[in-house]
Amino acid sequence: MTTKGAITMPTTEYTIEPGRQDLVSTVVLDAPRELVFKAYTDPELFARWWGPARYENRMEKFDITPGGSWRVVQVADDGSEHPFRGVTHDVTVNERICQTFEYEPIAGHVALQTATFESLGNKTKVTAQIVFQSVMDRDGMVASGMKSGADESMERLGALLEELKAGKR
Amino acid sequence: MTTKGAITMPTTEYTIEPGRQDLVSTVVLDAPRELVFKAYTDPELFARWWGPARYENRMEKFDITPGGSWRVVQVADDGSEHPFRGVTHDVTVNERICQTFEYEPIAGHVALQTATFESLGNKTKVTAQIVFQSVMDRDGMVASGMKSGADESMERLGALLEELKAGKR
Repeated sequence: MTTKGAITMPTTEYTIEPGRQDLVSTVVLDAPRELVFKAYTDPELFARWWGPARYENRMEKFDITPGGSWRVVQVADDGSEHPFRGVTHDVTVNERICQTFEYEPIAGHVALQTATFESLGNKTKVTAQIVFQSVMDRDGMVASGMKSGADESMERLGALLEELKAGKR
Repeated sequence: MTTKGAITMPTTEYTIEPGRQDLVSTVVLDAPRELVFKAYTDPELFARWWGPARYENRMEKFDITPGGSWRVVQVADDGSEHPFRGVTHDVTVNERICQTFEYEPIAGHVALQTATFESLGNKTKVTAQIVFQSVMDRDGMVASGMKSGADESMERLGALLEELKAGKR
């Protein structure tokens, strides 16, 4: 974690081995696991942190329960849209979410992503694995700027969690 | 294909490269694509060919449409059960099915499988890719006898397709 003003910003670490079809990111967030899990599964909260800040998230569907579907559209200031969708394979409350992921403009390239939430006292370690249908799909995702987008998401999530914790005090 | 009695049996070929997280199988079936696709998506037909012949398939859910869920239980003569489940990410009718796959006794090990159907005149080439969360998951699936089970499935599917074609004559 690094300190930016008064807030401790989360640092995301990535494991991206050459030739593999997956990538793994880990981050430690300064909030209890139940609150982090809620930020991943409540559509109103999710809309406030997912993706780069320059986009507004339009939550068309967001059913993060087994068998549920989700569709989120990132809308830019100029009206251009980036739609993402998938289905939820399984959820263990406060522990694990396993779902599919597809960026609609390159439809047919589907990934399976699994987020696990580990309680470290008042902090939470989130490990996210994404496995792609090919190494090329994975490398394309990395080349598209996935890391900076994910870093920014985690910074926004960190700030949101601070706000939610302050609201509870 | 090999000939067994009067019926031409389909031969399934596998690509399983060391260290990769996926496996690919291809088979050419002697039936038009629409009929093959129907055998993959109609629960009554699917129950008649999927898995080894020594099991009876109990179709608890089988919604092979985008966002649908499926659960199939292979029941042995002695009453022992092998339950499988997943969600359907996407379907392009007669062309492609993309869904998740999990064998419940080893819950938490999820795979993403994609079947594509290519028309070769009156025959159909089916290419199935399964991508696993780890190389170990994939190798475990192969070690469990996946290939002989899949070979038997394709032989049963070949026989069912012959029966369905005969019924139309």
